[in-house]
Amino acid sequence: MDDRLTIARSATSRLLVIPGPIEVTDEVLYANAHPSMSHMSLDFASVFGDCIRMTRNILYSKDAQPFLIAGSGTLGWDQVSSNLVEPGENALVVHTGYFADSFADCLQTYGAKVDQLKADVGGVVKESDIEAALKSKKYKVVTVTHVDTSTAVLSNIKGVAEVVQRVSPDTLVIADAVCSVASEEIHMDAWGIDVVMTASQKGLGTPPGLSIVVASQKAIKVFENRSTPVTSYYGSWKKWLPIMKAYESNAAAYFATPPVNLIYAYHASLSQITQGAVSLEDRFKAHKEASRQIKKAAEEIGFRGVPLSEDVAANGMTALYFPDGFGASDIVPRLLKKDVVVAGGLHADIKAKYFRIGHMGVSVVDPKRGDINKVISALKEVLAEAKAAKA
Amino acid sequence: MDDRLTIARSATSRLLVIPGPIEVTDEVLYANAHPSMSHMSLDFASVFGDCIRMTRNILYSKDAQPFLIAGSGTLGWDQVSSNLVEPGENALVVHTGYFADSFADCLQTYGAKVDQLKADVGGVVKESDIEAALKSKKYKVVTVTHVDTSTAVLSNIKGVAEVVQRVSPDTLVIADAVCSVASEEIHMDAWGIDVVMTASQKGLGTPPGLSIVVASQKAIKVFENRSTPVTSYYGSWKKWLPIMKAYESNAAAYFATPPVNLIYAYHASLSQITQGAVSLEDRFKAHKEASRQIKKAAEEIGFRGVPLSEDVAANGMTALYFPDGFGASDIVPRLLKKDVVVAGGLHADIKAKYFRIGHMGVSVVDPKRGDINKVISALKEVLAEAKAAKA
Repeated sequence: MDDRLTIARSATSRLLVIPGPIEVTDEVLYANAHPSMSHMSLDFASVFGDCIRMTRNILYSKDAQPFLIAGSGTLGWDQVSSNLVEPGENALVVHTGYFADSFADCLQTYGAKVDQLKADVGGVVKESDIEAALKSKKYKVVTVTHVDTSTAVLSNIKGVAEVVQRVSPDTLVIADAVCSVASEEIHMDAWGIDVVMTASQKGLGTPPGLSIVVASQKAIKVFENRSTPVTSYYGSWKKWLPIMKAYESNAAAYFATPPVNLIYAYHASLSQITQGAVSLEDRFKAHKEASRQIKKAAEEIGFRGVPLSEDVAANGMTALYFPDGFGASDIVPRLLKKDVVVAGGLHADIKAKYFRIGHMGVSVVDPKRGDINKVISALKEVLAEAKAAKA
Repeated sequence: MDDRLTIARSATSRLLVIPGPIEVTDEVLYANAHPSMSHMSLDFASVFGDCIRMTRNILYSKDAQPFLIAGSGTLGWDQVSSNLVEPGENALVVHTGYFADSFADCLQTYGAKVDQLKADVGGVVKESDIEAALKSKKYKVVTVTHVDTSTAVLSNIKGVAEVVQRVSPDTLVIADAVCSVASEEIHMDAWGIDVVMTASQKGLGTPPGLSIVVASQKAIKVFENRSTPVTSYYGSWKKWLPIMKAYESNAAAYFATPPVNLIYAYHASLSQITQGAVSLEDRFKAHKEASRQIKKAAEEIGFRGVPLSEDVAANGMTALYFPDGFGASDIVPRLLKKDVVVAGGLHADIKAKYFRIGHMGVSVVDPKRGDINKVISALKEVLAEAKAAKA
């Protein structure tokens, strides 16, 4: 009985390098198999409390309020849209790919009036355009996708926050950081980011199923001062705030049953990230280095990055156009045959022309695994095979 | 490395008998520790498809539509309230405890006008009262808590559905079955139940984190014919219906990342429930028998059940008033010392006067574990100890 997990692991020798879910450590998997525990027990409450505190540490925040709720990253959009924006208020969505369209859709569902500033595919929106928009109208929130998983474009959320603080200091800065937390640096307090929303299955190295939203005290005040009722039930901070405060004081409280096992898994991963052999700073450096290696190797053999320049390219994932004359069917199935699992295109404008590789978490910080080298070798081999097949 | 799971299990010899999360089988825990998998892979899609089909089987339904979404059971209320009820429409909430108040609160959040029919604590609402209410006003939905986890009261959802079909056949019958699916029989098609909403961590024997909602084709048609937009984003069936259909055809589609590991765990549990050594019918019988044993033993030594009569008492859990002169602090900590973890009171009117025991899933259908006997012996011992301490 005690060797089944080992058997299961060896049965799948595949390397998962999509931009989330990512490979996770054995410790995280073991924690996900924790025996059933009461969500109201003191043992569990203290684990949950640790998760709240460690989440804050990863964002270099002293007092922001984490919300850890069963759900996917998408639920973070609902939380922002239903708790921070009141029906009829304006929201400015800075668009660098697929996920901004969805966030805008979500905001509109809960009654916001949404304007979008759209970048060219692979580019970012100019700060001067954001400044002009903020001067033209009062926006309750401005949302920026930190790393858009559809394009691998990295936005300068620090720069956007500076513009907002200068031009429209009441506007809340919302970072959709699903594909960036723990793979890109975020100094929430110092940069003045009001909401960081993410999920468990990317840089945070945990299986999917946990929505992680962190709100500044300024955002909490805006929430507390709203004049209309919150427009979501399951995502209502009115319900969840007392629960999170209880758990942080290592007591339990009930609104809806938390994903107990996943909280244990998240705890295991957070412990490795914040107290492991690799410091948080070195972790960010390792992501930059792995990213540089993959992008350089790919470009040398004829792939071209979707991001238009190096300074807007994510460090936890890579999006690559296929070389001329090649498509997904030439590359992706051949990678799969070599047990390297990548993701296809997602952005509607270029869907068939590119693919995506994730390089986050343990694949990046544990060089003994050899994951990055495996990806690079496989890329080289399959392109050579694809060329040979066309010859 | 391969023995850590065993170590973790022996480290907690506690028996978890709260009304969810419940004890789960080793196979389910191992599946929850499945190595990371792409949510877009064919391997995962076929597992997800199986889960959809097996969920339907447990409810004896031929064509109802399951929605399996990362979230707690609470998210099911949001799905019903935002997809099936349009703002300003009437909802009738049949109240047998704490969870009806919350469902009403959720319905109102999304704009429904809610009327409640409240039973006395421990009782159910008379069908004649439901009939009178349905004749007085047009209701879009009537909601019934199948087993209210706060009172252990079992409602006759078959009877309520018969009344609705006779008096107001357009009204949808919604069963909040979080604490009943797989521990109480539900014949969704035959009884005419339009929505069964539940969660993974109770009778379904899986860790918490999965919202499971099953909608009849009649309910899906009502959803498709709504004249106003769906009022939730994350819970929108407009987003999820194509995804569930894709997965059922063993293909993958993307709206929000599913809780991949938990789906594997749910698959393992569903396989045991629908194809295991104990048939579904015998499983329901085993729950009745375990329930009878616990209730009889408890009443013999002086505890009294919260449900007012045997025919309204749940089979997957028991709620017991403490004997006169005793309170939670006399009983619950003593049970914990014997490694038996029960739950305190939840219903506001009687919170300090009673406690709750769960008896679902593997604790009930695997007699080798001896869980039911352990609960009964511990109850007897702690009451004797509590009496001795007062003497």
